[in-house]
Amino acid sequence: MIKPEHVHVIGGGLVGALTSIFLAKRGFEVSLFERRGDMRKLAVEAGRSINLAVTARGLKALDEVGLKRDVLDLAITMKGRMVHDMAGNTTFVSYGQKENEVIYSVSRGELNKLLLTKAGEYSNVHLRFDQRCVEHDLESNQISFTDEVSKQTHNVQAKVALATDGAWSVARQAMLANVKNFNYAQNFESYGYKELVIPAAAGGAFQLEKEALHIWPRQSFMLIALPNLDGSFTCTLFLAYEGAVSFAALKTATDVNAFFAREFAGALALMPTLAEDFFRNPTGALTTIRCAPWHVDDKLLLLGDAAHAIVPFFGQGMNCGFEDCSTLGVLLDAESDWRSLFQKLEAERKPNADAIGTLALENFVEMRDTVADAKFQLKKRIGFELEKRYPDRFIPRYSMVVFHAEIPYADAYQRGIEQEVILDALAAGIADISKIDWSHAERLMQHARPF
Amino acid sequence: MIKPEHVHVIGGGLVGALTSIFLAKRGFEVSLFERRGDMRKLAVEAGRSINLAVTARGLKALDEVGLKRDVLDLAITMKGRMVHDMAGNTTFVSYGQKENEVIYSVSRGELNKLLLTKAGEYSNVHLRFDQRCVEHDLESNQISFTDEVSKQTHNVQAKVALATDGAWSVARQAMLANVKNFNYAQNFESYGYKELVIPAAAGGAFQLEKEALHIWPRQSFMLIALPNLDGSFTCTLFLAYEGAVSFAALKTATDVNAFFAREFAGALALMPTLAEDFFRNPTGALTTIRCAPWHVDDKLLLLGDAAHAIVPFFGQGMNCGFEDCSTLGVLLDAESDWRSLFQKLEAERKPNADAIGTLALENFVEMRDTVADAKFQLKKRIGFELEKRYPDRFIPRYSMVVFHAEIPYADAYQRGIEQEVILDALAAGIADISKIDWSHAERLMQHARPF
Repeated sequence: MIKPEHVHVIGGGLVGALTSIFLAKRGFEVSLFERRGDMRKLAVEAGRSINLAVTARGLKALDEVGLKRDVLDLAITMKGRMVHDMAGNTTFVSYGQKENEVIYSVSRGELNKLLLTKAGEYSNVHLRFDQRCVEHDLESNQISFTDEVSKQTHNVQAKVALATDGAWSVARQAMLANVKNFNYAQNFESYGYKELVIPAAAGGAFQLEKEALHIWPRQSFMLIALPNLDGSFTCTLFLAYEGAVSFAALKTATDVNAFFAREFAGALALMPTLAEDFFRNPTGALTTIRCAPWHVDDKLLLLGDAAHAIVPFFGQGMNCGFEDCSTLGVLLDAESDWRSLFQKLEAERKPNADAIGTLALENFVEMRDTVADAKFQLKKRIGFELEKRYPDRFIPRYSMVVFHAEIPYADAYQRGIEQEVILDALAAGIADISKIDWSHAERLMQHARPF
Repeated sequence: MIKPEHVHVIGGGLVGALTSIFLAKRGFEVSLFERRGDMRKLAVEAGRSINLAVTARGLKALDEVGLKRDVLDLAITMKGRMVHDMAGNTTFVSYGQKENEVIYSVSRGELNKLLLTKAGEYSNVHLRFDQRCVEHDLESNQISFTDEVSKQTHNVQAKVALATDGAWSVARQAMLANVKNFNYAQNFESYGYKELVIPAAAGGAFQLEKEALHIWPRQSFMLIALPNLDGSFTCTLFLAYEGAVSFAALKTATDVNAFFAREFAGALALMPTLAEDFFRNPTGALTTIRCAPWHVDDKLLLLGDAAHAIVPFFGQGMNCGFEDCSTLGVLLDAESDWRSLFQKLEAERKPNADAIGTLALENFVEMRDTVADAKFQLKKRIGFELEKRYPDRFIPRYSMVVFHAEIPYADAYQRGIEQEVILDALAAGIADISKIDWSHAERLMQHARPF
């Protein structure tokens, strides 16, 4: 067990707030520095927050600090994807086949507010808002913050610093500049995203099926919509920056409305403020960041997006970050010094963060493209059937990632590759699951590794 | 054709010097800034320079500016690899099978000196030495240099800047910090390298076969030696940083001598200053750097290692950089504006730079490991035989990369993958080339794409 002492946490987003709670429960003195103002006092603007899907890994970590119930109270159950085709027809594709195999839509803002509120209830957690981290001296572990209100810069001396300041972490940038042989990669997709909204109907009613993630897959681009508690849906358009069909090609309200009328007619009818939202909201970038090492001696550790930013297509960015917190909790109890904790956390988490980073990129292709494909839906059904018949040897990849916190991401990735061979073999040449050659399946499954 | 004007070249290494010559021949006014002093006036210290292998792509670019002959005059022909096993036996493995399929060992220092001398002979080339680039303002294209003698910093206003300042390019670092959605990766290997030397015998005689690249492959590490004009060999030890057999484990002269006695006994006998060299020379790092874009508007272009640093195991770093110069020459004649030149150069060169970066990493495994393997040597012979029988459809991968400048690296990479399947099939279950089933080969080769 690491003896409780003073720890500086940089960044009060989702992972920083939860990290502070994991530390506080064990008696550590936590100073948490957050760039933004105190969001506990502010209303989260409805329909203007990116929605997240909380799944098994995130819930496991929240449960470990007694917050699972509080988070689920903020969430809306999503049982599957509602796929909207060009003609306006919908097909529901279930995420899992068991009762509890669902995911939970939650507002990023509301969740962050909850976690900071819970962190602030510990007397050993000191929340400092409006503190922009501007420099991290890796040698001395002195951290400089600019107070966003007074505009004064002050230095803080840390013994142990945990950087949870996201994809553009100041600490990681200092590591890139100063750590010898630092491995680093940042990769941007050629498409970006735009937040839009489908408001609630009069009286707060949902205008689309409430308990689903709605998706309008259109091969090279897509629109998705996640439900909010107030009856609205937060929509996200994923689209290339440049080209014939792209953000660059949508220059006027007329362009945007014509594009939606052509591609997402059903959604357009529910989006009265489309063009206004489109031109007011920024076009966001999608980035994958990988680096190594994640730590400097026994002084500094990167966690969450600071160590491993991923694209959002598996809905696992926050879940992966919360899993970091869970591992931190285990190692705080098991290890006796920080250096060894940092090394073991990185050894355990890095292969899993790399795997979910790759899976998330691959899932964009599934979401925008194959999810609308008959073969994809057939393979999905075959996968569920194999899971029923061989529960000890087959769990669909999506289910491993999303419902099975006990299977590390890296294992899910590897097994997913092996399983894809089986699914392709069984789906070859047939159009319907009733035509499957189950003796062939039996032979293939004999070689599958038991879990 | 781009109208000749003033161009700033940052970095006077091999690629910067050759870039300046390509520009000067076309009438451009070139200001070349180099961090180091004027090496034209200094003797290159024998046995202390990293050796390079000049091959077809490099020679093609040199030929385009009339310097092929001058460079070959500095070079020693290497006809193949001389593999030294643990018992001290040697096996010669030819690089090619045609008379002219050889590579050329040349001293980096001598080659750089030659290229700067030739560049300096153009009245429209202005060489500025002792100028350390410290900042590149991408907005204004103003570049700051610190004079290494006076320690004064001054600014230079460029219209068009070509950054050839190597793997740690200041311009590229400015792009990483300032260019939106800049893709970037730096990856360090877990092993480093150390320069060592086998001096000439009394009277300047070579102590090993002169016309070969010597290699002592030992699975996880290796020693190589390239001939110098003065009869010495420049040796390089590639070894893991950490672990049981590693740089970290070699702490004393006794450790180093014992390690060499055990692993490289034949070489040790020729290395009187081994321990001294080992502890005086730094341990170098091996890095692969990839980025995109390579240019900023019509203002700045990265070339050579600044755009695409690779590991040295295919001996193609300089050759790839010189190929950049060759493409630059073609586009200077074909294009009418810089923006379009920069875009086309990047579109043509980036896939090839990526491919040789990957090939170079893979070749370490070949050099340290499979080169000593009977199956490797059998497949090498089968490849040569296929090239003889099917010259329009099979060229061994090594030959495509090293002897065939007309085959882009990216094509060589892709064809190499396809050819490996054929070689594996033909080599399976046999130990000698006389046992090959040539009717099987005929069937396989029917599917091979003609060049």
